[in-house]
Amino acid sequence: MNTDLYDVIHRRRDVRGQFTGAPVPDDTLHRILAAAHAAPSVGYSQPWDFIVVRDPETRHRFHEHVSAERDTFARTLTGEAAERFARIKIDGVRESTLSIVVTYDPTRGEPAVLGRHAIADTGLYSACLAIENLWLAATAEGLGVGWVSFYREPWLAELLGIPAGIRPIAWLCVGPVTHLEKVPDLARHGWRQKRPLAEAIHAERWRPAAD
Amino acid sequence: MNTDLYDVIHRRRDVRGQFTGAPVPDDTLHRILAAAHAAPSVGYSQPWDFIVVRDPETRHRFHEHVSAERDTFARTLTGEAAERFARIKIDGVRESTLSIVVTYDPTRGEPAVLGRHAIADTGLYSACLAIENLWLAATAEGLGVGWVSFYREPWLAELLGIPAGIRPIAWLCVGPVTHLEKVPDLARHGWRQKRPLAEAIHAERWRPAAD
Repeated sequence: MNTDLYDVIHRRRDVRGQFTGAPVPDDTLHRILAAAHAAPSVGYSQPWDFIVVRDPETRHRFHEHVSAERDTFARTLTGEAAERFARIKIDGVRESTLSIVVTYDPTRGEPAVLGRHAIADTGLYSACLAIENLWLAATAEGLGVGWVSFYREPWLAELLGIPAGIRPIAWLCVGPVTHLEKVPDLARHGWRQKRPLAEAIHAERWRPAAD
Repeated sequence: MNTDLYDVIHRRRDVRGQFTGAPVPDDTLHRILAAAHAAPSVGYSQPWDFIVVRDPETRHRFHEHVSAERDTFARTLTGEAAERFARIKIDGVRESTLSIVVTYDPTRGEPAVLGRHAIADTGLYSACLAIENLWLAATAEGLGVGWVSFYREPWLAELLGIPAGIRPIAWLCVGPVTHLEKVPDLARHGWRQKRPLAEAIHAERWRPAAD
């Protein structure tokens, strides 16, 4: 197990196609959920929850829904983009060992969430920080993770009995993989390439694109 | 430098009070920004930018704004909560070496961002994943990071010349620290305690609180 942070950060991939379906030991699952739960959160609100989904029927139903949403997106594309998209696998819901659905509860820590009064979305941001911790820990453990976002939130809330007011943030496919690709899928398929880091860094103030 | 992922995840703190103001070497800063830039993003859109702020005048103005927002929040509190909050330091904007403002550009990768058609916020989520990578890398490098969210987005956009449509997501104070606290500030000050992990884990479906 290579747990060097930088190695993990740069090896991590969004996995769709390399899941083996092999078991995830309970202690491994516990370590990656504990890593997620150690994330920073606004006002220490820890507004996340983790629903571990193994049931094949639930995952089958979700996959059907994702496939329909895939078609919805495909219909917005034409020409080369449509051809490229047709070759891209967008989920490993059925092939991965299990899924983890991460939710956000805006009432956690209320009435006064320290640091959230000016920006309501900071609670949502906290849940995302937990997701990245989970993703890196899973990568260190030799597991792949794939974030599926081709779904409608109310549909998923209904599927898993998530109460009104609590928001599903991510469906993560998790499990052992044959390998992690060196290059992200969307770059390999010519969908988008890596942006140069230098373009993303600005000194002191925003640098207009014309510079 | 201890770069073990789990060690870093569990040592990481949201720092307000322990910044020394000592320099951050350029190569260190580059490594933590490269770590952020290696985060996953919806449709490989890489929608983040990083504004590195060192100018004392800019930081002074931001700190004044944050202090006013601190007062706004304080006025919503009464009794014990007000007393507890009075003891809590909420930013290290002036004492830290530099700040990194992370922004989100929803137009990156448009017109068709793969995976964002059903959930607009997924682009915002990507920027947060980059922030967690940055935070962990900085922790591994022996730096502290403090996320300040006591600000109004339009005010910050104006301060840094961020164009309309691009959203500032975080102001991060970054720099060497005397030490990282073992226990999060808000727990030490009795604001909120760690939620037991077991409460956050659900099997198959949402578990009602009454169970």
